[in-house]
Amino acid sequence: MLMGDDLEDGNLGPYQERLRTFPNMRGKSYNPLIFRILMGINVRVLVVILLLALGVVFYIGARTSPIIVFVFSVCIISFLLAMHLAKWVLAKDEGPPEMGQISDAIRDGAEGFFRTQYGTISKMAILLAAVILCIYLFRTTTPQQESSGLGRVATAFITVAAFLLGAFCSGVAGYVGMWVSVRANVRVSSAARRSAREALQIAVRAGGFSAMIVVGMAVIGIAILYATFYVWLGVDTPGSMKVTDLPLLLVGYGFGASFVALFAQLGGGIYTKAADVGADLVGKVEQGIPEDDPRNPAVIADLVGDNVGDCAARGADLFESIAAEIISAMILGGTMAQRCKIEDPSGFILFPLVVHSFDLVISSVGILSIRGTRDSGAKGSEDPMAILERGYSITVILAVLTFGASTRWLLYTEQAPSAWFHFALCGLVGIITAYIFVWITKYYTDYKYEPVRTLALASSTGHGTNIIAGVSLGLESTALPVLVISVAIVSAYWLGQTSGLVDENGVPTGGLFGTAVATMGMLSTAAYVLTMDMFGPIADNAGGIVEMSQQPESVREITDVLDAVGNTTKATTKGFAIGSAALASFLLFSAYMDEVATFAREPFKQVDIAIPEVFVGGLLGSMLIFLFSAWACSAVGRTAQEVVREVRRQFIERPGIMEYKEKPDYARCVAIVASASLREMIKPGVLAIVSPIAVGIVFRIFGYYTGQPLLGAKVVASMLMFATVSGILMALFLNTSGGAWDNAKKYIETGVLGGKGSDCHKAAVTGDTVGDPFKDTAGPSLHVLIKMLATITLVMAPVFL
Amino acid sequence: MLMGDDLEDGNLGPYQERLRTFPNMRGKSYNPLIFRILMGINVRVLVVILLLALGVVFYIGARTSPIIVFVFSVCIISFLLAMHLAKWVLAKDEGPPEMGQISDAIRDGAEGFFRTQYGTISKMAILLAAVILCIYLFRTTTPQQESSGLGRVATAFITVAAFLLGAFCSGVAGYVGMWVSVRANVRVSSAARRSAREALQIAVRAGGFSAMIVVGMAVIGIAILYATFYVWLGVDTPGSMKVTDLPLLLVGYGFGASFVALFAQLGGGIYTKAADVGADLVGKVEQGIPEDDPRNPAVIADLVGDNVGDCAARGADLFESIAAEIISAMILGGTMAQRCKIEDPSGFILFPLVVHSFDLVISSVGILSIRGTRDSGAKGSEDPMAILERGYSITVILAVLTFGASTRWLLYTEQAPSAWFHFALCGLVGIITAYIFVWITKYYTDYKYEPVRTLALASSTGHGTNIIAGVSLGLESTALPVLVISVAIVSAYWLGQTSGLVDENGVPTGGLFGTAVATMGMLSTAAYVLTMDMFGPIADNAGGIVEMSQQPESVREITDVLDAVGNTTKATTKGFAIGSAALASFLLFSAYMDEVATFAREPFKQVDIAIPEVFVGGLLGSMLIFLFSAWACSAVGRTAQEVVREVRRQFIERPGIMEYKEKPDYARCVAIVASASLREMIKPGVLAIVSPIAVGIVFRIFGYYTGQPLLGAKVVASMLMFATVSGILMALFLNTSGGAWDNAKKYIETGVLGGKGSDCHKAAVTGDTVGDPFKDTAGPSLHVLIKMLATITLVMAPVFL
Repeated sequence: MLMGDDLEDGNLGPYQERLRTFPNMRGKSYNPLIFRILMGINVRVLVVILLLALGVVFYIGARTSPIIVFVFSVCIISFLLAMHLAKWVLAKDEGPPEMGQISDAIRDGAEGFFRTQYGTISKMAILLAAVILCIYLFRTTTPQQESSGLGRVATAFITVAAFLLGAFCSGVAGYVGMWVSVRANVRVSSAARRSAREALQIAVRAGGFSAMIVVGMAVIGIAILYATFYVWLGVDTPGSMKVTDLPLLLVGYGFGASFVALFAQLGGGIYTKAADVGADLVGKVEQGIPEDDPRNPAVIADLVGDNVGDCAARGADLFESIAAEIISAMILGGTMAQRCKIEDPSGFILFPLVVHSFDLVISSVGILSIRGTRDSGAKGSEDPMAILERGYSITVILAVLTFGASTRWLLYTEQAPSAWFHFALCGLVGIITAYIFVWITKYYTDYKYEPVRTLALASSTGHGTNIIAGVSLGLESTALPVLVISVAIVSAYWLGQTSGLVDENGVPTGGLFGTAVATMGMLSTAAYVLTMDMFGPIADNAGGIVEMSQQPESVREITDVLDAVGNTTKATTKGFAIGSAALASFLLFSAYMDEVATFAREPFKQVDIAIPEVFVGGLLGSMLIFLFSAWACSAVGRTAQEVVREVRRQFIERPGIMEYKEKPDYARCVAIVASASLREMIKPGVLAIVSPIAVGIVFRIFGYYTGQPLLGAKVVASMLMFATVSGILMALFLNTSGGAWDNAKKYIETGVLGGKGSDCHKAAVTGDTVGDPFKDTAGPSLHVLIKMLATITLVMAPVFL
Repeated sequence: MLMGDDLEDGNLGPYQERLRTFPNMRGKSYNPLIFRILMGINVRVLVVILLLALGVVFYIGARTSPIIVFVFSVCIISFLLAMHLAKWVLAKDEGPPEMGQISDAIRDGAEGFFRTQYGTISKMAILLAAVILCIYLFRTTTPQQESSGLGRVATAFITVAAFLLGAFCSGVAGYVGMWVSVRANVRVSSAARRSAREALQIAVRAGGFSAMIVVGMAVIGIAILYATFYVWLGVDTPGSMKVTDLPLLLVGYGFGASFVALFAQLGGGIYTKAADVGADLVGKVEQGIPEDDPRNPAVIADLVGDNVGDCAARGADLFESIAAEIISAMILGGTMAQRCKIEDPSGFILFPLVVHSFDLVISSVGILSIRGTRDSGAKGSEDPMAILERGYSITVILAVLTFGASTRWLLYTEQAPSAWFHFALCGLVGIITAYIFVWITKYYTDYKYEPVRTLALASSTGHGTNIIAGVSLGLESTALPVLVISVAIVSAYWLGQTSGLVDENGVPTGGLFGTAVATMGMLSTAAYVLTMDMFGPIADNAGGIVEMSQQPESVREITDVLDAVGNTTKATTKGFAIGSAALASFLLFSAYMDEVATFAREPFKQVDIAIPEVFVGGLLGSMLIFLFSAWACSAVGRTAQEVVREVRRQFIERPGIMEYKEKPDYARCVAIVASASLREMIKPGVLAIVSPIAVGIVFRIFGYYTGQPLLGAKVVASMLMFATVSGILMALFLNTSGGAWDNAKKYIETGVLGGKGSDCHKAAVTGDTVGDPFKDTAGPSLHVLIKMLATITLVMAPVFL
């Protein structure tokens, strides 16, 4: 099942041409080392090694805290459950051979791109690790480090090791997402021939598998790092580090995760949308053939794109969201516990890990609640969206309960007996925020509501008014989420401040931690949300396979319904991702200020935008968002144009394609998109990484010569905040307008305003094309960018001083 | 010449129907009071009153400072020169009667809309004045006021009077711009039949007239207010106000100006682009008739739009830019002079007035340098752009010289002998920034360069890729201007800091004033720039009249060339407007912080974005920009759809139109656009005014209950800064992408990539349509919004405390 040798009967040559035009995909020599090692090991040896590792992990955990043991246990059980889900999915049949052939081609393309992409990313990661190592080797040590006996070299290696582990885990998270989706897609198509319910169940369980792995890995990775450092550095023994300082050592993990996620999202996002736009522009608009038609030479590339763009990239994205949020909450918990002189601070520090452990438990209940047996055979008896939403409701109710329990368990302290209740309310604020976010996204992107209907109506007066209306809709849709997030930040902060936790001078200090708890509340159902998200591209792919293998109309109807549901769930996940990015970035910003104060050995409590240089930093930060979005969009545009030219060329040179007499050269399109998106992801990615560092260094030097201490750090702080604000708004704009255009087109396709093929529909297709890079390339990349900026400033802080 | 009664021979009925469908335009009963009074006065009485007023003004000026007398004299001379220009333009012939008829219809539509629009605006202004009065009557007095004996009531009336005067002057500025353009357009058309050079000269001199009036009025208005307050309040006599506090009393003038400019720009911008988009979508795209074709029912509305949108609105916009910049620089000059204990601070305070007096002198040299005699008869012998640019170069060289002279004259002080030279360099920074801005705008919007050519190429793969490429281009084009403005801010601040001016503790204090001087440098050629800007819509209108009166091809070629030049100059003016808005807003921000500190009687030096509420303020500020842009764009989209439906209806109901057998009902389109744009301008305008006030009050109350003093003021400050930054970027994005789309279309129309009528051209027309509301409605409204926010916070500061 490695390579669909017989896919192109009688036309094998051109498909193999891929190997020539895209040398990076040639064979296994470009396999990342780690895959090769893992593949080379005997299974029994692997099991023994795993068991041994498990023993070590539990031993270390036991020496650290019982909470860590609890977290480990939950993660291990979740992994076992995930294996069970994967096994269940893989046990399903792959349908007729023609489906298998298409699926093989998709898998081959996706895995090939993944290997090359992550090869490039890992090289960059190693380079960056070397840079970080150098910086940390030459930086000054902090008073804490000196008192704990932690030398410069040890800190350097700890940070680099955390960075590399974060990067590696993020890569694995992406791989897992893609691995299961390229296997589940064909099984969903096959099941769709029998029952809608079964198809839904397979897609959900496949999504559930990767969600459990992604969330579990984020949690266990941080737990292992924490426990290892705890034991290794002899934390809390006299003369060594305090446990409240420990979380700061984990920052490298978050940076590694966001670094990989950024490039994964950029590369995958460019790939999927360039293929999609290119395929649509020639296929749908010029030739008038339906989506995913086997005659379209770019159709395999489009289907590959769903896997590398949506599954792999979103896996890495959510992994990074959770990691960043856990680490920032741990840092804030530690800082607060120290200020309030809480006797046993480990509850406050480990709280986020426990929340996400419960997340795994309750989400698996939600996933398993979606059963396929009831209506086997009778298809379409229930709206799949309703089924998914029922599962979500179950998960949310459980989340409220477990969240309350966790706060009582871990955040109860005799110093402030009601604090835990305040924090439980903060969690509730987060959960409610998430709910409202989902609702707002639905309101602006679902064609049941006014905005998308108005947008569809605007298509009836032409392409131009459609675009104007879509842009306005997207810009307008930023307002409500911003209001909601504002209320959430202020109220969670206020709940935290009034929690009764005070520092030694009696000043309330729980505010920031309150915001952190709200963020956790928002993400307390992350695994279920990720499941719903992963479900989308799997269903989309299944639809493609059904279409390409020319199944009867009834089968296609089932996958179409699932696909439409997937579009909605995908849009709502983006709402989560932005909301949590906004909160996490604000938290990491506070951590950054603490970090700078520690290094500079002087208070650093304010970022005053009335200073011209700091204002300029803000200008540059917002500009970074605009430039990054520009480059991400234009990368898709350029690559799509290459695809258009190739597809047009094939239609001209092989006139038999349209009559099904000649097979199109799918592989050439795959190769073109793959190499172009690898090339195009570099520019915006490097911009994102280099610019905060460059700005920090330039203003550090400028500050040195103009007698302004800490100028570099201040300018970077303001850059970060302005970039966060602009990034949130820009991402909301891009995601919502893209989703609305997509659904306005779908709405017209239901037959209103002239239906398919009318001028109105053509205008709507233009909008959909424009929305593609907005919602699937630039938008999601911005979520990651925001958090990447927050972690990079934290890791690079020593350079700015 | 009041109403073109005979315009619609045999079809008079429907044209008068306008009076029925749009009752607000009925007769003179809706004339603003001031017009009626002015019109009712006998000319000789008027002259006597004017001379008397002049005498009073000079007497007050003489009692204030010789600098004021100088400023008065220059302004009066400029007004006389402007009269001369107007007389020269009006003496030109109006061409054949068919031109005159069209021009009458345009004038009638423009003046009708202007009256109704300003009627609405003046009502809102009076309402707002009442609100301000109430606020100031109940606010606490500042220590300065107490020491100067200036009571609460006096301050309230001063502020309200300044506000109303600013609003009135802004209205007059808009009216003057429109007044001359509706008269010059037909004269340019007529001259185009004879000579390109003469047509150019008429357009330039007409633009020059309104530029001189606009700039002169901004300068003399502030000078009169300043002198009146100086004499009335007995400034600098013992026990009364210090002269350095005087400029703060002028803030109301700036707010009044920006208030009117905002609504003028919104209403006019919606009008012009709704008519343009509506006319193009049916005329060009659906029916395939050329632009400005007499068969298009929306063509008169489109031509009216150029006058009310581009001329009237841009006049108010630039008026407000100059007023805001002068006032903020005066405030900063006063503050600095006070801190440094400079003996005679009037030089520092009055410096901006002198700079703009010189601006009037050198710009008139530039305007008069464009002569029409040399090649009379031989048309097209020289590129009009080159002629305009030569005039600009002359103006810039003179600006450098006069700027240096003014700094030496007014900013020389014995305390810091080299300070004047530092400030001269600041001015040079400003002038260079303006030059680079012009160049960058040209690079991104002129089809001689790479970006627009790439955009045109992207049109060849369809509507979708054209839009993606245009959006990316616009987003990318924000980068260079931001870098330039960043360098300008930092370097001007640094030059100011090192000027040698120190406060009593020896701390350098000249930084902010340095930035202010750079802003003045940037705007030191404002009158010439405004001339070039006004030139564009006049040429555009002339082209329309030529097309509609069906003149020979050779005449149309001349106006087409002038129109194309006008497009470029219009784009560059927007660069100026944004650059100066960025700087002016930063300066007004500092003034705001001083103001708050004065009211609160405690230092207010920092806006710390690490405080959650302040961060939320920033989020809300950026959101305001997005929402405002959304509403501005969607207003155009909605109104354009109304126009499209009306034009389609007319084509269906009057099939004779296409064969020139029936006259279309132009008036109905005019009425539809006028009433729709009046309705649509309210929502975004009110949003802009209400939201900072609401946010300030909400957080003031929240701060009161959570024990955070000054919270309201801090949150508003951060809202203002984030809105400024986002506003600059958004405006750059909107203006540049709009301009680039327009010129990409023009580039294709030169015959490349298939030329007119090809699929590529159709895609480019879509881009142009999308760009219209971007570059002429939302973009320019944002310039005004930024400064309006800065002035409103300054005036409303007492409410936030």
